[in-house]
Amino acid sequence: MTVVSVAHALAGKIPEGGEVTVRGWVRTVRASNGLAFVNVSDGSGFAPIQVVATDALANFDDIKRLTPGCSVIATGRLVKSQGKGQSFEIQGQGLEIVGWVEDPLTYPIQPKPMSPEFLREVAHLRPRTNLFGAVTRIRDCLAKAVHRYFHENGYYWISTPIITTSDAEGAGQMFRVSTLDMANLPRGENGGIDFSRDFFGKETFLTVSGQLNVEAYCLALSKVYTFGPTFRAENSHTTRHLAEFWMVEPEIAFADLAEDARVAEDFLKYLFRAVLDERADDMAFIAERVQKDAITRLETFVNAPFERIEYTDAVSLLQKSGRKFDYPVEWGLDLQTEHERWLTEEHVGRPVVVTNYPEHIKAFYMRLNDDGKTVAAMDVLAPGIGEIIGGSQREERLDILDARMAQFGLDPEHYQWYRDFRRYGSVPHAGFGLGFERLVVYVCGLSNIRDAIPYPRAPGSAEF
Amino acid sequence: MTVVSVAHALAGKIPEGGEVTVRGWVRTVRASNGLAFVNVSDGSGFAPIQVVATDALANFDDIKRLTPGCSVIATGRLVKSQGKGQSFEIQGQGLEIVGWVEDPLTYPIQPKPMSPEFLREVAHLRPRTNLFGAVTRIRDCLAKAVHRYFHENGYYWISTPIITTSDAEGAGQMFRVSTLDMANLPRGENGGIDFSRDFFGKETFLTVSGQLNVEAYCLALSKVYTFGPTFRAENSHTTRHLAEFWMVEPEIAFADLAEDARVAEDFLKYLFRAVLDERADDMAFIAERVQKDAITRLETFVNAPFERIEYTDAVSLLQKSGRKFDYPVEWGLDLQTEHERWLTEEHVGRPVVVTNYPEHIKAFYMRLNDDGKTVAAMDVLAPGIGEIIGGSQREERLDILDARMAQFGLDPEHYQWYRDFRRYGSVPHAGFGLGFERLVVYVCGLSNIRDAIPYPRAPGSAEF
Repeated sequence: MTVVSVAHALAGKIPEGGEVTVRGWVRTVRASNGLAFVNVSDGSGFAPIQVVATDALANFDDIKRLTPGCSVIATGRLVKSQGKGQSFEIQGQGLEIVGWVEDPLTYPIQPKPMSPEFLREVAHLRPRTNLFGAVTRIRDCLAKAVHRYFHENGYYWISTPIITTSDAEGAGQMFRVSTLDMANLPRGENGGIDFSRDFFGKETFLTVSGQLNVEAYCLALSKVYTFGPTFRAENSHTTRHLAEFWMVEPEIAFADLAEDARVAEDFLKYLFRAVLDERADDMAFIAERVQKDAITRLETFVNAPFERIEYTDAVSLLQKSGRKFDYPVEWGLDLQTEHERWLTEEHVGRPVVVTNYPEHIKAFYMRLNDDGKTVAAMDVLAPGIGEIIGGSQREERLDILDARMAQFGLDPEHYQWYRDFRRYGSVPHAGFGLGFERLVVYVCGLSNIRDAIPYPRAPGSAEF
Repeated sequence: MTVVSVAHALAGKIPEGGEVTVRGWVRTVRASNGLAFVNVSDGSGFAPIQVVATDALANFDDIKRLTPGCSVIATGRLVKSQGKGQSFEIQGQGLEIVGWVEDPLTYPIQPKPMSPEFLREVAHLRPRTNLFGAVTRIRDCLAKAVHRYFHENGYYWISTPIITTSDAEGAGQMFRVSTLDMANLPRGENGGIDFSRDFFGKETFLTVSGQLNVEAYCLALSKVYTFGPTFRAENSHTTRHLAEFWMVEPEIAFADLAEDARVAEDFLKYLFRAVLDERADDMAFIAERVQKDAITRLETFVNAPFERIEYTDAVSLLQKSGRKFDYPVEWGLDLQTEHERWLTEEHVGRPVVVTNYPEHIKAFYMRLNDDGKTVAAMDVLAPGIGEIIGGSQREERLDILDARMAQFGLDPEHYQWYRDFRRYGSVPHAGFGLGFERLVVYVCGLSNIRDAIPYPRAPGSAEF
């Protein structure tokens, strides 16, 4: 008796007729004429395996009473299946029932289509559905591909601080982190909160980005990246925003904006190739049930060279498009999703890198171009979603950085450490940020970003 | 001209005499008789590369003025080095100076031994030192090995929520997360804080562990793990504690405590083998400068079968040891580090898995053994550090879980979702937790855990 995963049993690597044991949860049961067909899933891959039990089994009466969600251990001979759409099945020699379902009629996960809205209410059980099993495996595949890509290309992973005193964007809305007794706050002499008595002896927040921190490592180890959670306390409860999400942020020494864009393109294509190669089973389900072109659009993405367009040219194109947009198009204004999608979907029909945005709509740390009006920033736009990556070359010239900080009203004292990199062997460098859940939404064709994380609205989670 | 990393140039894969370009920061400079020897590091590996410049170069006067920390781009022919301890060097045909050091005398990172205490004060620059370069690359190697091990063994990565409403241990001290205006807190009818007006509509905290959450995925996908930050607001500012640290938490369906221990052993050995294979350069430095037996103790670890000892037997052994301990040894009390280290270092001389601890000193979710007095918990103890992994089989029987929750004074209503897994196809399952920074401390022989994270005492970080 060899215990194997269902995915392994179905993969055709075990000699036919070999005896195996699989363990998992019942998806469906069908019983008739002294036979029971029990579909068992262990989540190792998309497909369950069919176990055929006969009334020769001593516990056949119990087996007939199995319902979706019961846990079992099945042992038997692996044989080619006669059934459509399955490679192998198990001729059951034993089917041990490990755990029953307390009240089958109220068990929330039934073998029928269930809406994502309903499943968000029982988020702790939704991993047992086809959809969320697939999303979880695809998410895992993408995360592993992130680390593998950077490993193969000589980048080191850096875990930047989650609890922080600084605000990387100079503007983000942040969550406060504190152990002060809120019912009895310590007050300073002027009546304000005395944060010197808080856990860290000062006011602290959840990070909005690891970028400024990771620059320290970039300017010593040359190629680095973060992959960790970040937080935005923005009260925009839309289907596109999360308060807590994971970000991938590579940072590359001696790189300019063109190199930054080249890496972004190479990186995204690597990730999508990994999903197509490694999760064909789950992607087939996504294409069948969630988004028809889920596979073909990734294939197109992987094979298409990205277009490059300057922001200034993008504005002209939009203005001449003859299209009516909800938001105004004018040099100096940021591009909205409708503009981005027109550019990538209708005008170019491929992913587009828009570069060199007006300096006043971008962050203080982005490198000022020679025109004095734009900065070396880029957004990567993809058909079907719009912006998927944002990045920039960083300002490596101390005098210009100081001028930019003054312009943004930032206290240079607070950024002394960040200025240091420009005082000590400054080099050009660039990087970008990829919202990981946004990537999952895109690959899985989800319409609500809360379905791209393990725990929306789940007990134990505050995200909703 | 091919741009390569210093590690690649030194690896012997480029044909001798080939022309290469490397980019990085000056470590040391020595000039005499119309020659300058410039050691350049880009952090791609431990060793810098020596660039030999002659006074035939137009900017030779500037090259002579280079100091540690300056950034350069060096181009030249790669040739076998005559010098001791270096494989190749570059005969410089060009040495472009990219960035100077503003005031070389006050530049904090000098080519001389510097204490970790001093470097914690300039944490944003310490990645440029030999020690922190090595720690960063080893940390990256360990993190990648964590993901690779689980990938090769069929586990899926789950990112459990950071902001949470529940406390996985039932006891941990937690950081509060809030967007309420502390200077003007909303009050409820009874005068208490009105958390319904906070960001998530209720009181929220930073997670202390992803374990309870990840169980939902284990009981659907069978083999899963978390690898993410966790938080403890414990006011123990020792060299062994962090308020913010990363944890690895696998969770395995259909596993008992013996299988849990087997995976823990296999996993740790895999990680250490990865470091020995992939970071020989950095480990050689650690062994030379930080911890003499750094390499040999990992080799011993990898080759030694772990011992298994029951807690009850461990207490007897300690009592009969004739050794005087600072803390009392008695059945029912937890083991202290001095006890753990005696067991693993002096009594066994190898890693030890201690199993089946008294139920009242362990968490409510651990499986009650048939003796009614102990739970199926384990601690993995390693020579040189003590406890490195803690784990348990989880209580899968609803009636016993309910009794345990009552005993610990936990509200079953709050854990309804966790109870659900025992109502719907419950199966035995087990898992463990590994503090990632503790692992880095062990491998790198560090004496302060704040040197195992990128940003202790750094500007922008609240950890100190």
